Amino acid sequence: MSSANPPPVSPLAPKTQPDLPPVAGVRLATAQAGIRYSGRTDVLYVGLEAGTVPAGVFTRSKCPSAPVDWCREALTSGAARALVVNSGNANAFTGQRGRDAVALTARIAARAAACAETDVFVASTGVIGEPLDAGKFEGVLADCAARAVDSPAAWAEAAQAIMTTDTFPKRATRRAEIDGKAVTINGIAKGAGMIAPDMATMLAFVFTDAALPQPVLQALLAEGADRSFNCVTVDGDTSTSDTLMLFATGKAGNAAIADATDPRLAGFKAALDDLLTELAQLVAKDGEGARKFVTVEVTGAESDRSAHRIAMSIANSPLVKTAVAGEDANWGRVVMAVGKAGEPADRDRLAIWFGDVRVAVSGARDPDYSEDAASAVMREQDIRVRVDLGLGEGRARVWTCDLTKAYIEINGDYRS
Amino acid sequence: MSSANPPPVSPLAPKTQPDLPPVAGVRLATAQAGIRYSGRTDVLYVGLEAGTVPAGVFTRSKCPSAPVDWCREALTSGAARALVVNSGNANAFTGQRGRDAVALTARIAARAAACAETDVFVASTGVIGEPLDAGKFEGVLADCAARAVDSPAAWAEAAQAIMTTDTFPKRATRRAEIDGKAVTINGIAKGAGMIAPDMATMLAFVFTDAALPQPVLQALLAEGADRSFNCVTVDGDTSTSDTLMLFATGKAGNAAIADATDPRLAGFKAALDDLLTELAQLVAKDGEGARKFVTVEVTGAESDRSAHRIAMSIANSPLVKTAVAGEDANWGRVVMAVGKAGEPADRDRLAIWFGDVRVAVSGARDPDYSEDAASAVMREQDIRVRVDLGLGEGRARVWTCDLTKAYIEINGDYRS
Repeated sequence: MSSANPPPVSPLAPKTQPDLPPVAGVRLATAQAGIRYSGRTDVLYVGLEAGTVPAGVFTRSKCPSAPVDWCREALTSGAARALVVNSGNANAFTGQRGRDAVALTARIAARAAACAETDVFVASTGVIGEPLDAGKFEGVLADCAARAVDSPAAWAEAAQAIMTTDTFPKRATRRAEIDGKAVTINGIAKGAGMIAPDMATMLAFVFTDAALPQPVLQALLAEGADRSFNCVTVDGDTSTSDTLMLFATGKAGNAAIADATDPRLAGFKAALDDLLTELAQLVAKDGEGARKFVTVEVTGAESDRSAHRIAMSIANSPLVKTAVAGEDANWGRVVMAVGKAGEPADRDRLAIWFGDVRVAVSGARDPDYSEDAASAVMREQDIRVRVDLGLGEGRARVWTCDLTKAYIEINGDYRS
Repeated sequence: MSSANPPPVSPLAPKTQPDLPPVAGVRLATAQAGIRYSGRTDVLYVGLEAGTVPAGVFTRSKCPSAPVDWCREALTSGAARALVVNSGNANAFTGQRGRDAVALTARIAARAAACAETDVFVASTGVIGEPLDAGKFEGVLADCAARAVDSPAAWAEAAQAIMTTDTFPKRATRRAEIDGKAVTINGIAKGAGMIAPDMATMLAFVFTDAALPQPVLQALLAEGADRSFNCVTVDGDTSTSDTLMLFATGKAGNAAIADATDPRLAGFKAALDDLLTELAQLVAKDGEGARKFVTVEVTGAESDRSAHRIAMSIANSPLVKTAVAGEDANWGRVVMAVGKAGEPADRDRLAIWFGDVRVAVSGARDPDYSEDAASAVMREQDIRVRVDLGLGEGRARVWTCDLTKAYIEINGDYRS
């Protein structure tokens, strides 16, 4: 996996990339620390002004990486002054040496940012099991702190530096108002299928100038993650290092709001959810080998939770995903995936659509089924699969991509 | 998916096929009913003498096929006189027409076998969602009943007739003693990855001349299935039609045994488990596109159940399976799969082996790790992955195959 031979950009990549405006209190710089790659940036430093509040959502893996352990602990301090992200090495399953490497990274960054080590957040993405030589950050981070700026170019470079097998950088921006005050939200993400070849990890970092106390920020982020990143899958494989963080500098000077359900946060919440959804969809669109973007909608389930499980069963099914790759309106595989989800479902009430074409209803093929119409839907680049269970009001929507031979090539045909 | 262009036989196919001896009370015949295929047999009829006791284990899918519903109901009668299996159409998700088709099949078979309809068992494998024209069995089954014999050739033809995308027929035989009386167990199976392209289903049928009451037979089969078919996975996709049945004719004349835990059944139980395991492994070895057979062993888990879940998480991981295909000793992906299983695991106690080469220990790469030694293991055709969790006494062993580009080709690149 060298930069000398980059993979072709996903056909699902956005045609244009947004310019990210400044977020007051946030400055960024990137550098080449030579962790694993050569000839490209592999470290991102983000300086955060005093008063910045962090929130985070992390992998549910029982074997989390050392940086994930560190961030969970650091969150308890309630303050953030610096974020360091490296690509090329995940520092996962690296034992005591891994813990030492994170501590050293935090020490170097704390010196650069003139802050406490517990105010430093660290994320790593790349190979699992290789020791990370954090000594390479010595000098690099101090230089980054001196150079850090808030230009659109700096945001663009930040999104680039955290890529591993991603074929395009992922960034998004939104504006909202909190009680009449304008606030900005910027986000960057990386991930080419929850898990990339050796290159574990989905990472996303969101920054806002809104002033919000930590419990509110954490609640908004957790809810937003449930509706965005937790609704995206490429291969069902959960990284040891998945990290989603939100930093709020408070520089917008909006009124203090102590409750995440305060109606004055409605606009901010909608903008945050929207940004998280955009980033999550970009990850699915850069799924390894992806040629089609798939939206799976489940309605009529006994509960939202049940609908989500059924939607994920469909979105993770290799047979559904290969059928999409083959442009095959193979609704029998959707039935199979509903059936295996283990959730309440009644075969005789099921209805299934590809796009707007209903292919099955009441436990059998739709009497008006048109193979031509269904096939035309499958030839599109964006595919919508909808299942109605006819049982209740539960609904869910998740996103994935198709499963192509390129996924196998990327993950199996050669050593990375 | 026509017989004109058969796929190449799996490199994992057994070099020789066993001749199956007669099982007293069992006679078989196959025919071409023209359900979907042309130029090949697609229906198996098995006549069972009066007194035959059935047992069955079926898919856990919430959307089972019409034949699975029928068999579950028919089992309550406690008697079996005929089994009809067709390939080419799964009669799944076919609504009332599907139920009617099974009822008609049973009526035709009952006439042919001169028995009650509730003594007829039916299994179908093939396309989901297409109506099955059971009228095609008219005449065919009566002719089969007249021709049915117990020769090795008839057993071989039986294993052939139930194939869909299988690249080789699957049959096995064992002998055992019950309280001094010799008994025979024959089994046939089909399945090329739990689910074949459109061609859903793993089916297996086992026949013995042992005399065993229904509750004993059912208990032995359920236990055996847990140690064999429930330990095999190709793609994690569960068919709507998975069916494993055991028929005992009682012709061996062994002593009546009323309890499945009776020590006099130890030999029979071992032989049955062994046969079921052989058939289950043959299914994994015919996994779509498979080039390598993989045994995943988990030890040191908190419980056997926990060990089984972790083993299945590893065996179902697309990233582990593509690594095996790529002959890559990528133990980081094994860590990932352990972590995502959601079961108790402590990163710092994990040890991982490929074959006999320990690659990781105590939460980090083995200090004596040899890439050459690990790579040599990965070039073998049979790959053993072992994980020790260091937590307790729970253990499990499951089987799978690698994930290759041929899987994608079979399932996505062309319409079946």
